[in-house]
Amino acid sequence: MIGYKYGANRVIEPEGVLPQTAFKISNDTNISDNEILIDVQALNIDSASFTQIEKAQNGDVEKIKKYIMDIVELRGKMHNPVTGSGGMLIGTVEKIGKNLLKKTNINIGDKIATLVSLTLTPLKIYRIKKIYKDIDRVEIDGKAVLFESGLYVKLPSDLSENLALAVLDVAGAPAQTSKLVKPGDSVLILGAFGKSGVLCAYEAKKRVGPTGKVVGLVASEKDKESLIKTGFCNEVILANAVKPLEVLSKALEANNGKEFDISINCVNVENTEMSTILPLRDEGIAYFFSMATSFTKATLGAEGVGKDVKLYMGNGYTKGHAEIALQEIRESKILREIFEKRYA
Amino acid sequence: MIGYKYGANRVIEPEGVLPQTAFKISNDTNISDNEILIDVQALNIDSASFTQIEKAQNGDVEKIKKYIMDIVELRGKMHNPVTGSGGMLIGTVEKIGKNLLKKTNINIGDKIATLVSLTLTPLKIYRIKKIYKDIDRVEIDGKAVLFESGLYVKLPSDLSENLALAVLDVAGAPAQTSKLVKPGDSVLILGAFGKSGVLCAYEAKKRVGPTGKVVGLVASEKDKESLIKTGFCNEVILANAVKPLEVLSKALEANNGKEFDISINCVNVENTEMSTILPLRDEGIAYFFSMATSFTKATLGAEGVGKDVKLYMGNGYTKGHAEIALQEIRESKILREIFEKRYA
Repeated sequence: MIGYKYGANRVIEPEGVLPQTAFKISNDTNISDNEILIDVQALNIDSASFTQIEKAQNGDVEKIKKYIMDIVELRGKMHNPVTGSGGMLIGTVEKIGKNLLKKTNINIGDKIATLVSLTLTPLKIYRIKKIYKDIDRVEIDGKAVLFESGLYVKLPSDLSENLALAVLDVAGAPAQTSKLVKPGDSVLILGAFGKSGVLCAYEAKKRVGPTGKVVGLVASEKDKESLIKTGFCNEVILANAVKPLEVLSKALEANNGKEFDISINCVNVENTEMSTILPLRDEGIAYFFSMATSFTKATLGAEGVGKDVKLYMGNGYTKGHAEIALQEIRESKILREIFEKRYA
Repeated sequence: MIGYKYGANRVIEPEGVLPQTAFKISNDTNISDNEILIDVQALNIDSASFTQIEKAQNGDVEKIKKYIMDIVELRGKMHNPVTGSGGMLIGTVEKIGKNLLKKTNINIGDKIATLVSLTLTPLKIYRIKKIYKDIDRVEIDGKAVLFESGLYVKLPSDLSENLALAVLDVAGAPAQTSKLVKPGDSVLILGAFGKSGVLCAYEAKKRVGPTGKVVGLVASEKDKESLIKTGFCNEVILANAVKPLEVLSKALEANNGKEFDISINCVNVENTEMSTILPLRDEGIAYFFSMATSFTKATLGAEGVGKDVKLYMGNGYTKGHAEIALQEIRESKILREIFEKRYA
């Protein structure tokens, strides 16, 4: 049955939708023949979600635990009803449905991270063992289920768990960048020293080659200095991403007065659409990875200024995205140091 | 000064943003050298905005008039603070700034429609003459200002005003379709008998040629029959666009079990993202024209089911969009009849 691939058999309410849209899904641990059962070790709650929960419970660890237990009990998944966001999890493969045995490259006992959101992953929590507030991590005793369409990656043995998770969390952005950017392109990266931004900058620099140019935009003098040191950008500019005219003028100046071929938005704040759109040339590409992007602000905004540019939403998945992102960390000592310092 | 092109000189608050983002802009009728002054005849209020105002004022025409006057007085533009949307206007060119005299193809006295949103157009209303509630139209005595980047079109003499406005309102969709769709493509159009959908279906059919296929999705038996009669689609299916599995199964069946190259979303209801994404082939293109599209639902949704597809936001502007859309109406008697019946 076609729906089983996407976990439609798990939807309790409302009918006819997929698990992510559903309010409630079944977290039954008796898996079907095309599902995988995971013995869960830890949840990495999405940052927006964890911050909201922490604030709502005044930082009280016991109350945070209860709130998370309650959500999962109610919805069958860790899908924060306020922020609408989830996160990812790590655990050990406990059982593989017989239809998937030949299709997957994992074995029982393998340690994996899921690459699909917790907002669609059936989850049962028996007990919350510990909460690490500074890294939004929740260690649990529990089980989760992956559908046939579910994405996962075996945790690499040569990188620490936290390092791998930090990279995998934003793997789509550098992978899409690697496919999008061509030799000779001029690329503007907004938020170029953030988690996804710095990976995109590294990847873009590699792709544009000696005839192209990467300009990174950051919000603080400290980030500017650090980003310059990495060598990932030809130019680094300091500007407020919510001020499109300031961004336009500084970005063009850094590109010899020319408009850009591609701009990549990795700034997780609202109202940065026009700063991404204005510096582009005719038929240039605006790539939005920021989850704070507004569809209407981008589309009406581009129309409003008569910019004939392509507006792409950053799909978190593209083939090989986990491998591409992990490979970056392996091949660049500078990137690895940045990520180890911040997340490991 | 670079900002003048985009009307930044008109922004009153907050500072540093563009007119659309601004809460208040100046509607001073003393235009600068790169602006155009329009003697306004009528506003075509955006449907979402007009409906909201009508409801809030209980349909009372005098109260609606006062509310519109109040918004424009407060903000210097007809930018509905509740819906965030605007509309367009028609009027006569009264004055052309001297820097634009050689750059434009219009003359004083020409009747034009603006193609940029009222949410960024400086507007002064002296008097509201009449309100046509059924077509969201407000006839006024007033003046408006177009910036150098502002888009407009001379109203054609061979089409009625209402017909031209209805087409121009959604001109971006068929124009982008004409540039996107290639011979041999299979194309799924969601909402294929709506205002923008039927234009897209016509254009897609023309582009795919005899080796391609256009499948139109509609929500009612009546629309299905009407759309079949146009001949714009190879197949027409009846399905609920908020039920992705229903859409997936019916759409694939209509395409000989194959996934589509391109899907175009023209359904103005929420939660249709997955219905647009699921029927696509690997590396297919989902094109979202619906203003009800959610950025997070599209991006997290595609990732959630592991679909490696391109997610495009429909830019309302592309070069020649007004001409392309008007040309469709001229060349297809069937399209013209549909639009005349509905909007003229």
